[in-house]
Amino acid sequence: MKLIESMNPRTGEPAGAGVSETPAAELSSTLSLAKSAARRFATEPLTERSALLRAIADKLDDRAEELVPLADSETGLGKPRLTSELARTTFQLRLFAQVIDEGSFLEATLDTPAPDAKPVPRPDLRRVLEPLGPVLVFAASNFPFAFSVVGGDTASALAAGCPVVVKAHEGHPELSRRTGEIVSSVIAEHNLPAGIFTVIFGQQAGRDAVVDHRIKAAGFTGSTTGGRALFDLASGRVDPIPFYGELGSVNPTVVTKAAVRARGSEIASGFVNSFTLGTGQFCTKPGLLFLPAGHNLDTALAEAIGAVEPTPMLNARIAESYAKFSAELAAYPAVRSIVTPRLHTEPGAWGVPALFVTTAEKFTEAAETLATECFGPSSLIIEYASTHELINALQSVEGSLTATVHGEQSDLQNITPVLDVLRPRAGRLIWNGWPTGVAVAWAMQHGGPWPSTTNSLHTSVGPTAVRRWLRPVTYQSFPHDLLPQALQDGNPLGIPRRVDGALRR
Amino acid sequence: MKLIESMNPRTGEPAGAGVSETPAAELSSTLSLAKSAARRFATEPLTERSALLRAIADKLDDRAEELVPLADSETGLGKPRLTSELARTTFQLRLFAQVIDEGSFLEATLDTPAPDAKPVPRPDLRRVLEPLGPVLVFAASNFPFAFSVVGGDTASALAAGCPVVVKAHEGHPELSRRTGEIVSSVIAEHNLPAGIFTVIFGQQAGRDAVVDHRIKAAGFTGSTTGGRALFDLASGRVDPIPFYGELGSVNPTVVTKAAVRARGSEIASGFVNSFTLGTGQFCTKPGLLFLPAGHNLDTALAEAIGAVEPTPMLNARIAESYAKFSAELAAYPAVRSIVTPRLHTEPGAWGVPALFVTTAEKFTEAAETLATECFGPSSLIIEYASTHELINALQSVEGSLTATVHGEQSDLQNITPVLDVLRPRAGRLIWNGWPTGVAVAWAMQHGGPWPSTTNSLHTSVGPTAVRRWLRPVTYQSFPHDLLPQALQDGNPLGIPRRVDGALRR
Repeated sequence: MKLIESMNPRTGEPAGAGVSETPAAELSSTLSLAKSAARRFATEPLTERSALLRAIADKLDDRAEELVPLADSETGLGKPRLTSELARTTFQLRLFAQVIDEGSFLEATLDTPAPDAKPVPRPDLRRVLEPLGPVLVFAASNFPFAFSVVGGDTASALAAGCPVVVKAHEGHPELSRRTGEIVSSVIAEHNLPAGIFTVIFGQQAGRDAVVDHRIKAAGFTGSTTGGRALFDLASGRVDPIPFYGELGSVNPTVVTKAAVRARGSEIASGFVNSFTLGTGQFCTKPGLLFLPAGHNLDTALAEAIGAVEPTPMLNARIAESYAKFSAELAAYPAVRSIVTPRLHTEPGAWGVPALFVTTAEKFTEAAETLATECFGPSSLIIEYASTHELINALQSVEGSLTATVHGEQSDLQNITPVLDVLRPRAGRLIWNGWPTGVAVAWAMQHGGPWPSTTNSLHTSVGPTAVRRWLRPVTYQSFPHDLLPQALQDGNPLGIPRRVDGALRR
Repeated sequence: MKLIESMNPRTGEPAGAGVSETPAAELSSTLSLAKSAARRFATEPLTERSALLRAIADKLDDRAEELVPLADSETGLGKPRLTSELARTTFQLRLFAQVIDEGSFLEATLDTPAPDAKPVPRPDLRRVLEPLGPVLVFAASNFPFAFSVVGGDTASALAAGCPVVVKAHEGHPELSRRTGEIVSSVIAEHNLPAGIFTVIFGQQAGRDAVVDHRIKAAGFTGSTTGGRALFDLASGRVDPIPFYGELGSVNPTVVTKAAVRARGSEIASGFVNSFTLGTGQFCTKPGLLFLPAGHNLDTALAEAIGAVEPTPMLNARIAESYAKFSAELAAYPAVRSIVTPRLHTEPGAWGVPALFVTTAEKFTEAAETLATECFGPSSLIIEYASTHELINALQSVEGSLTATVHGEQSDLQNITPVLDVLRPRAGRLIWNGWPTGVAVAWAMQHGGPWPSTTNSLHTSVGPTAVRRWLRPVTYQSFPHDLLPQALQDGNPLGIPRRVDGALRR
């Protein structure tokens, strides 16, 4: 049986004994257990479902002193960041518990019968969102808690009432196994079927699961290549399933002339901080910065980069492909480097910050190469001579999770054409901020046009992420006792509902 | 240039002079116009958008005396049905106008800044749904108004603020052209860009449009084969787009022993009426009826079928494939016919009702053949000897738009296992009714698991159909003047919004 082994990126040494890949027979029984747990979990009282999420959060917080060092040994992301990421993960679980208790995620809608309605009579109709069934989650490497085994996809799918099968990321197998054990122990304590939650290991198991008829939807966070391949498998099934993939994102950031004038050095240091954060391994890293020509920020930028402490990348493969990408960009005609990359000869997988500059004209010509996401602590500055050049260049940028503008009061009147070219390219538009840092909140949107996600109608962060795992079912003229509680007369759950078109509580 | 010519299915004679297929160059300029109209239409005041929908409805009602005979000559569906269908279509447009005015479809969500929030500070976040851009609609043959040029897909996409390109169905080109002219004239009267709405003709134009980068989503109502091919094109794009297809549906209907005892003959006539309605060309036709063995309804069923007046099918191709399917089913081992089909030798494309019977055991063995949708006035009765046999047989039924149970008070205690096998197979569950007849209402769900639709998360009928053409955009820390009205302080549109997690108006 093949072992999945992780490496400590600070030392290059093995981070644990390794975890076995899930064999085909075990995968099949996992999927059967998930399928047979689906109805039971779907009909469990909602208060039990929210209690489960809170109990998982509590147990994970309890185990922080074990989990954070384990995560650090496999990812090198550092204990402060990982402590905060675990807190974010448990916050997210508790927020979804609130979402369940509040109940509007069910979209309960009732139409009273109208036998004389024109042009056709209307029967008693009651509509509610119900769980899709077993959900497959592909964990990410770069957020070992928040987008991994019990991250946003898992939390939202459990909140929807769907059993979850997580395909662990190869980068942190020990942490994935241990996190899975903790979640499973809470499920057992709550006397719920074990099939509600399982972790599987190995790429083959993931590919087999995504085309298995027992899986009804999938979530993914990772590379464009990997995500596209799985999206194609999911869409190519005899019975296609929804596949919510978060793939690559360049997160264009525009700085106006007035903003450079007003706070150029603050922007330079904010930018460097944002694109090097987490060794540049954030999906919201500002990968393209559009600066007005003559910005005069080279020195400030170089100084800010010089102040960045070296940090490891997630693993050797990622570090190598980052180094290759940076070298290619440095050698590209019409691209110059702001800093000469420091050599790093220590063992382990270290990422050296890099920053490149080109002109809007050259960028527009070679966008296919230059506008590609680079995973790691580098970014590309595009110098524009006019708004016309800026807009032309932005038109070659593909869909992103975010788009940012740094501007001043004096820009408000003329910025609309720039926003009009950014808006169809992003899910979140930011003013005078940086795209890294994704608040877990009701109004968050973490999802944008292709290729940043496979489906821009949805978000993978925030309460509405639950909508991805639910489908509407209408009950027509149903006996009252057979209706789901959410649709019964008198609103026994006390949830917001729409009755004859009007919102009520 | 190739002509699309329709036939009067009552006579077999041509129904008009024909309409030319849209050439590639014209298609391309149509798509460019749609793209360039998108931002203008998206930012038009919502009151203008709802006024447009109402004006289109009014103009179509005004033209009923022209449109209904034209539709009848190309589809043979009869003037009473077509008059009612046009009324349903304009009702639908007016309902979407109400949906726009009510404003909760925007899902406006605001989170006030919380700089001290744990584990991470929260900026000012405001989220709203915005139109996806140009939408391609594939019109259906069987509803020349309600699911055609200005049917539910078009109405909901316009309500969302998306330009619409309709690929007309080959079955009613003259009606499609004329309906398109009427809609375009209203758009011109409202001083809106013509690119907001165009009708294109020809299968090649449809295939070219669905893979064109200017199209951002597509809707489809038609056959499983045709829908699957277009779904594959849409999903296989360099930049995949959402494809909402309504394909085939068998709409299983279960009758309990108690229901047969209590009202067997009423059920027999209701069933025959439902599966022969519109010459059996409804997507919600009950194609499978599960009756308890020993039901003793053969005579009542045969009499009800004998009373059905012959009606034409939509066109010769459909009539031929129906005749072939019926003949194959009649010849299938272990299938018997309730009636000997009457011969129909008149010219035109007539559909002769047929009804077949098999046992649950045989059905389960040969479900791949027997559980397939047949477009036309036939249905298959499956006789079950026990609940166990019934449930086994239902497990071989694929996803459907609807599933129906006819039961009595005495069934309520024991029907849950039957509902549990029907629920994951349908979008609408009906008690003691018939699936034909889809009310346009807030609580309607017209969409079910594959293959009844390509995406069971959505509906193509009812207000929430608008959700298919919208994507969330979050504005972070944005200057107030640059925010969409829906998100501005003081709620200037007076719409329902969620503020810091709580629903407010």
